[in-house]
Amino acid sequence: MKRSKVAALLATTEIDREVLVKGWVRTKRGNKFVSFIALNDGSTINNIQLVADAEKFSEDSLREVTTGACIAASGILVASQGKGQTVEIQVNNIEVLGAADPEKYPLQKKGHSLEFLREIAHLRPRTNTFGAVLRMRHAMAFAVHKYFNDHGFYYVHTPIITGSDAEGAGQMFQVTTLDPANPPKTETGEVDYTEDFFGKQTNLTVSGQLEGEVAAMALGQIYTFGPTFRAENSNTTRHLAEFWMIEPEMAFADLTDNMDSAEEFLKFLVMYALNNCKDDLQFLNDMYDKELLNRLNFVVQNSFQRLEYTEAIEILKSAKQKFEFPVEWGTDLQSEHERYLVEKHFKKPVILINYPKHIKAFYMKQNEDGKTVRAMDVLFPGIGEIIGGSQREENYEKLAQRIQEMGIHEEELWWYLELRKFGTAPHAGYGLGFERLMLFVTGMGNIRDVIPFPRFPKSAEF
Amino acid sequence: MKRSKVAALLATTEIDREVLVKGWVRTKRGNKFVSFIALNDGSTINNIQLVADAEKFSEDSLREVTTGACIAASGILVASQGKGQTVEIQVNNIEVLGAADPEKYPLQKKGHSLEFLREIAHLRPRTNTFGAVLRMRHAMAFAVHKYFNDHGFYYVHTPIITGSDAEGAGQMFQVTTLDPANPPKTETGEVDYTEDFFGKQTNLTVSGQLEGEVAAMALGQIYTFGPTFRAENSNTTRHLAEFWMIEPEMAFADLTDNMDSAEEFLKFLVMYALNNCKDDLQFLNDMYDKELLNRLNFVVQNSFQRLEYTEAIEILKSAKQKFEFPVEWGTDLQSEHERYLVEKHFKKPVILINYPKHIKAFYMKQNEDGKTVRAMDVLFPGIGEIIGGSQREENYEKLAQRIQEMGIHEEELWWYLELRKFGTAPHAGYGLGFERLMLFVTGMGNIRDVIPFPRFPKSAEF
Repeated sequence: MKRSKVAALLATTEIDREVLVKGWVRTKRGNKFVSFIALNDGSTINNIQLVADAEKFSEDSLREVTTGACIAASGILVASQGKGQTVEIQVNNIEVLGAADPEKYPLQKKGHSLEFLREIAHLRPRTNTFGAVLRMRHAMAFAVHKYFNDHGFYYVHTPIITGSDAEGAGQMFQVTTLDPANPPKTETGEVDYTEDFFGKQTNLTVSGQLEGEVAAMALGQIYTFGPTFRAENSNTTRHLAEFWMIEPEMAFADLTDNMDSAEEFLKFLVMYALNNCKDDLQFLNDMYDKELLNRLNFVVQNSFQRLEYTEAIEILKSAKQKFEFPVEWGTDLQSEHERYLVEKHFKKPVILINYPKHIKAFYMKQNEDGKTVRAMDVLFPGIGEIIGGSQREENYEKLAQRIQEMGIHEEELWWYLELRKFGTAPHAGYGLGFERLMLFVTGMGNIRDVIPFPRFPKSAEF
Repeated sequence: MKRSKVAALLATTEIDREVLVKGWVRTKRGNKFVSFIALNDGSTINNIQLVADAEKFSEDSLREVTTGACIAASGILVASQGKGQTVEIQVNNIEVLGAADPEKYPLQKKGHSLEFLREIAHLRPRTNTFGAVLRMRHAMAFAVHKYFNDHGFYYVHTPIITGSDAEGAGQMFQVTTLDPANPPKTETGEVDYTEDFFGKQTNLTVSGQLEGEVAAMALGQIYTFGPTFRAENSNTTRHLAEFWMIEPEMAFADLTDNMDSAEEFLKFLVMYALNNCKDDLQFLNDMYDKELLNRLNFVVQNSFQRLEYTEAIEILKSAKQKFEFPVEWGTDLQSEHERYLVEKHFKKPVILINYPKHIKAFYMKQNEDGKTVRAMDVLFPGIGEIIGGSQREENYEKLAQRIQEMGIHEEELWWYLELRKFGTAPHAGYGLGFERLMLFVTGMGNIRDVIPFPRFPKSAEF
């Protein structure tokens, strides 16, 4: 008999038939007449109840059916008498595929702290919380691909290993095949990178944007979705050394098009979660964050407030609230400022635009005022910045000048500059940190809990 | 006016209306009465023809409309008089967004060698060939996600940076923030990796399989799709230092299920290409490989031949063909052997199973004969091995023994072993090299031409 998935059985109306299920035992309880086994197979957060009559199953025959054990069970799918489920299985046969010694299996019935679960990342997907998070991570990743495919964007794999350190988004990890204990040296005593694998010093990428622009300037609309890296020694709930980024890039788009795209995209993703992850969302809402569903609905239902950076500074200056960091035109906004704008002042997501050029990246298009660039940050409740983007500088001379002003190695960016020399066009794009999105849609508080195997300072386990 | 994509205009029946297009000039030709401009915007391999009457456009006004220039053009979409297209645009207005100096722009009309185009990877997406390849790469990536989503598999991001060197699939790149010119040393003079970013030596992953198994043993069916790395100094048309792998893993699956899944998955992908990439495939078929479409149809229409390794050895031994490498039970098959089986003997794709255990990885399930493991390789015409996989050893003792026999650091794999200690289950999976698939569906001959920015020894440009 073919195995049925629990999700399919819980949704079916075809009862009174024989079925086979396989999965992991969450709980077993009962009395001398009957045992009730809650089985989960990962296809849904909900368990299916197996009813094992004592007439058929002696206590001894169920000895190894304990929390964490993997079993195959067949029987008749029937309407359930109990509350909380519509169907259950009157089992006729149980096979233990893999036991889980109750003395040693770390995931017993009692609740576990998220910190403890991080130490057993190989088992935590078997908990309700991480099952829900991982199913939602899949749903969100699929929604990303579906959105862009439906809108005529092409997925581009930008390189992970880069010979450039000009991306300027943060500290980088070095990639090498040299032996650090004894690297080859040049005559002047420096490490001789011409003998390294790529013939020069290489790093892990901090962004696929620049290469994404290459593709956009040929294919029109593209997006990247891949891992990016920061070698920053930050032990916060918002930073990882390895995380996934989504970076769309659009030829023939200006800052307004960019805002329109970012808002539509985010609303699509949140709507997709609401429509496709109902059970997992309800669990996370009930267990972790009672405002989660409200917040998701709120984002879908409201237009994002679009606002000049300069106006935001005025609002913050006249705010009655005391801020820890001072507000002055020309300074970057802190999290407290972003959250004030979103959560207190406008009470909806905010898109801030036209930031001072000296606090933004070299590739952003300069405005005619000589002071600001066509940057945009999308600010979300509870999260702060969820998307950062800009219209790009498409003018060769202005871009080359900015590269020089900022002391960036121009010779590394010859190809990026050439995009402006041959058939340049206005274009714009943005970056969405996938784990930031996951924090928002799951309501989880720590970014280490929305990625299967988190990488952070002093930790690269599993 | 909103820009229309060329793909949409070429497919429309609504003519005699004003349209705006933006894109890159492929060619301009004409006479003293009229100019014909072939415009491409990346949405399709086909250009749209712009017809510019000399009455409206002086020669001088079209001076910058040269190959490679980016323009915006508006006019009336009309039925075309010329052959090879159904519609064209009688243009009223042309704006040059970005010129491309004909003296300097490297992509003039004449054909270019693939070797030359590799040196200008920032411009090659603007050629017909790489436009086709990149659109197909998108289509194949989307098809991968669609297939697994539709079949209830969850996408899992396995880590890129790994503290393990036990995956055993090849030489690894080291990831570090230590200064190789002057790394911290221990008292005994060795590099002190406790001071490295992760507190130990770390590498770039060669496979997400082991972590994928973690997820499968909780969620049931999962897949990975991410970059993997090999630091091997191989300059071939089949190897890259950085490439993308797809690795599904299924709980409760045996070797037969694995074969069924791999065959269905590959057929789905090839069928998706045939249905969704018609124009790009026709171009590649005409330009590079006249057998391409035949080969794709052939794969979709034929059952894959399933065959024991031992039987394959017998067939090869009795073959009339002379092989360069000798055939003996216990040796790995060479490309010439694989191609003989696929292209000469069976004349269809072949799935070879039950290989000698000493030529396969430690995690493969041992057969009862004591000599073979439940491995499978899917062999394709022109490509050789396109998929490798196996049923996994789910028995704790057998796996631990095999790890010991093969001299692998068991302490690095404690978590992998624990999957067999707590609720183990039969499971199986396989790996598809995405660029191998791309070689097959595009008919391209060199793996460096099916990824946007190839990484190989001495080359990490762009």
